[in-house]
Amino acid sequence: MTAVSKTVETNGTAKGDDDGRGDPARAAVHEAARNARVASRILAQLTTAQKNAALHAAADAVLAATDAVLAANALDIEAAKATGTEESLLDRLRLTADRVGGIAAGLRQVAGLADPVGEVVLGATLPNGLEIRQVRVPLGVIGMVYEARPNVTVDAFGLALKSGNAALLRGSSSAVHSNAALVEVLRTSLAAQDLPADAVQLLSSEDRSSVTHLIQARGLVDVVIPRGGAGLINAVVRDATVPTIETGVGNCHVYVHAAADLPMAVKIVLNSKTRRPSVCNTAETVLIDKAIAETALPAVTQALQSQGVIIHGDLPGQVPATEADWAEEYLSLDVALKVVDGIDDAIDHINRYGTGHTEAIVTADLAAAREFTARVDAAAVMVNASTAFTDGEQFGFGAEIGISTQKLHARGPMGLPELTSTKWTVWGDGHTRPV
Amino acid sequence: MTAVSKTVETNGTAKGDDDGRGDPARAAVHEAARNARVASRILAQLTTAQKNAALHAAADAVLAATDAVLAANALDIEAAKATGTEESLLDRLRLTADRVGGIAAGLRQVAGLADPVGEVVLGATLPNGLEIRQVRVPLGVIGMVYEARPNVTVDAFGLALKSGNAALLRGSSSAVHSNAALVEVLRTSLAAQDLPADAVQLLSSEDRSSVTHLIQARGLVDVVIPRGGAGLINAVVRDATVPTIETGVGNCHVYVHAAADLPMAVKIVLNSKTRRPSVCNTAETVLIDKAIAETALPAVTQALQSQGVIIHGDLPGQVPATEADWAEEYLSLDVALKVVDGIDDAIDHINRYGTGHTEAIVTADLAAAREFTARVDAAAVMVNASTAFTDGEQFGFGAEIGISTQKLHARGPMGLPELTSTKWTVWGDGHTRPV
Repeated sequence: MTAVSKTVETNGTAKGDDDGRGDPARAAVHEAARNARVASRILAQLTTAQKNAALHAAADAVLAATDAVLAANALDIEAAKATGTEESLLDRLRLTADRVGGIAAGLRQVAGLADPVGEVVLGATLPNGLEIRQVRVPLGVIGMVYEARPNVTVDAFGLALKSGNAALLRGSSSAVHSNAALVEVLRTSLAAQDLPADAVQLLSSEDRSSVTHLIQARGLVDVVIPRGGAGLINAVVRDATVPTIETGVGNCHVYVHAAADLPMAVKIVLNSKTRRPSVCNTAETVLIDKAIAETALPAVTQALQSQGVIIHGDLPGQVPATEADWAEEYLSLDVALKVVDGIDDAIDHINRYGTGHTEAIVTADLAAAREFTARVDAAAVMVNASTAFTDGEQFGFGAEIGISTQKLHARGPMGLPELTSTKWTVWGDGHTRPV
Repeated sequence: MTAVSKTVETNGTAKGDDDGRGDPARAAVHEAARNARVASRILAQLTTAQKNAALHAAADAVLAATDAVLAANALDIEAAKATGTEESLLDRLRLTADRVGGIAAGLRQVAGLADPVGEVVLGATLPNGLEIRQVRVPLGVIGMVYEARPNVTVDAFGLALKSGNAALLRGSSSAVHSNAALVEVLRTSLAAQDLPADAVQLLSSEDRSSVTHLIQARGLVDVVIPRGGAGLINAVVRDATVPTIETGVGNCHVYVHAAADLPMAVKIVLNSKTRRPSVCNTAETVLIDKAIAETALPAVTQALQSQGVIIHGDLPGQVPATEADWAEEYLSLDVALKVVDGIDDAIDHINRYGTGHTEAIVTADLAAAREFTARVDAAAVMVNASTAFTDGEQFGFGAEIGISTQKLHARGPMGLPELTSTKWTVWGDGHTRPV
């Protein structure tokens, strides 16, 4: 296929598909994507039983390869230490026999989830007798760009396989040995099941270019899902020509309304901020209604400070807040705090500075709760509940590929159905359409 | 907001949001988008009754303004004639009193459709008592880039309004007077209903740059839907940073299987190719199984030629087909014809050259029909039915914003639900999440 091809289709030969005469790094990514497409066509036809058997076999293989995986991980840890990586990152990178066991158990858990493929979403017999059905089908080839943790490698493979998709994985260079060892185990296991090894492939993490080639392989890759920090996600979303699903940036708010029960408000603010400060559903700003500020402000402030939270705000004893604080995703034991002038002010602030992830109100007033849920523009809106509940496991999905903060295709926690598309089938008996 | 802002949110202030100190054309599009966002927040809260009343009022206003709209249209027609525009394009551009009546009737038809906003898609009471609901909400601000026909201006407004969205319209410069007159009527009608006029805005069509600014206004615009020829759609999809929905490019196939009923096959091929050759669901390639080529080939060929269809293929008396013909969307009384070696060959050819729009098989063999529907990768797969049935009206949606040929968010004919996103609401009574 040459660069002047007229082909614009989505089914295997991309616009600008590279046969190797151009950039070799780009050609390598495109070849991997084409091989993934071939594999994906086989995966799409597997029964649920076949996919579950493959997942259990992969879990067995990962467990059996524990020693080799740990040896590979030791190389990554050693390299990371040599470059002075801090302990919290080392901990994310580190595998142990227990953690490998957890990775294998995750595959078995995915085997236990409902298979979304083949679900009939809509259906009708039309007045002319045509039978139409909208059926869930795999997306095809899913690209994942992610940071540090090697368990994501196996998680992504498992969720992709169960939903009938091939996975092109671009992990962090810091986890290159761990990821390579895990992917090799998965590929060998697939081949032993007479399934295509190219259902999972690890792209080179030697330089940034493989990310660029992956996210611009429009027509060869059906969707790219970035998982990681705001910098990674924004870069992927900005430069991609492949459709992306934006995940995980959360500048989440808790609004303590005038009619809030104060002990409940304190409890929800604390849980939203301090349960796990480094995750995307943590609260980053607390809004306190002026009407109850006199009591709520000291109560909330003292509770936060007693847990070591640093408050950025406009009041004495706080770190002075700047405009940037309202937009900040601290992911730490910091929080911005603002007194707002009623529910309109609160909603305006949230819709201006929020990232569309999770927003919470604490109130005993039904009208306020209804107004807040109706007017706040976010993937999840909580009434008298912690922001920490926005999570695929908590929502009952069993597993989660990420939390979408965009409006197209998927919004909020994404489970297996979000890794599918649909296809209309139309059955007739010689039907033609009148002019 | 400055260019160094850390804000990355999707709720009103875009990355790179332009306050006018940069390119004035870009600033104008961004200002329109910000005004659309403000309007969209009001639209999102309207009841179905309010939206229907606004649609009927707009229909009344369009009818009442028939003379002014026709006068504006006459300017466009005159300008188009002066540049030597061919009659078929003039006809697409031309409005008559009847056509204006049809445009108004279209608004009333949308008023009669079910309102997707507020539909509860999923819901559960979690084991901990939290009540979660996934509710349909508007997307927000929808950009439309489209060609020639002025009726699309009003159609897009109506569908966007009914689904609670603001519309940023970028029509063709050839229809500039007609579009401006229609949008002015719609805006005046909205204002008279105490609704925000900025729910519909026409962007300048003076140069290409407004398209670029619209499709790159990430964070200010929630989705862009291009409607037009392959060139327009590919350019929008390639250059957009705003999520897009790819529509309408259709290299559709009819496969005459070995077990086809021959008169049925002839009827379906003819209807698929000749009913309306210029639309996206028309067949562009006919595949005939080698096993019945001896009888099917002359029958299909003669039937097509009797209707004036020019056949591109490998057989004597045909225009010699090149590689490019298999990928061509003729949109004319031309068709490519190929003899294939069984169903695998047919499916491989379709999955290689198809654009993922509509593919049909004619067969009396159940196993072949099941295999074809399972393995062909397209928005719609027909068994013993014409490709012409892929259409929102035919599928019973009442109206159609386009036919998606991508896999994310929407695939196939798009009705009102495809112009929505969802929001999770979570109601508790002081719930916090255990560590």
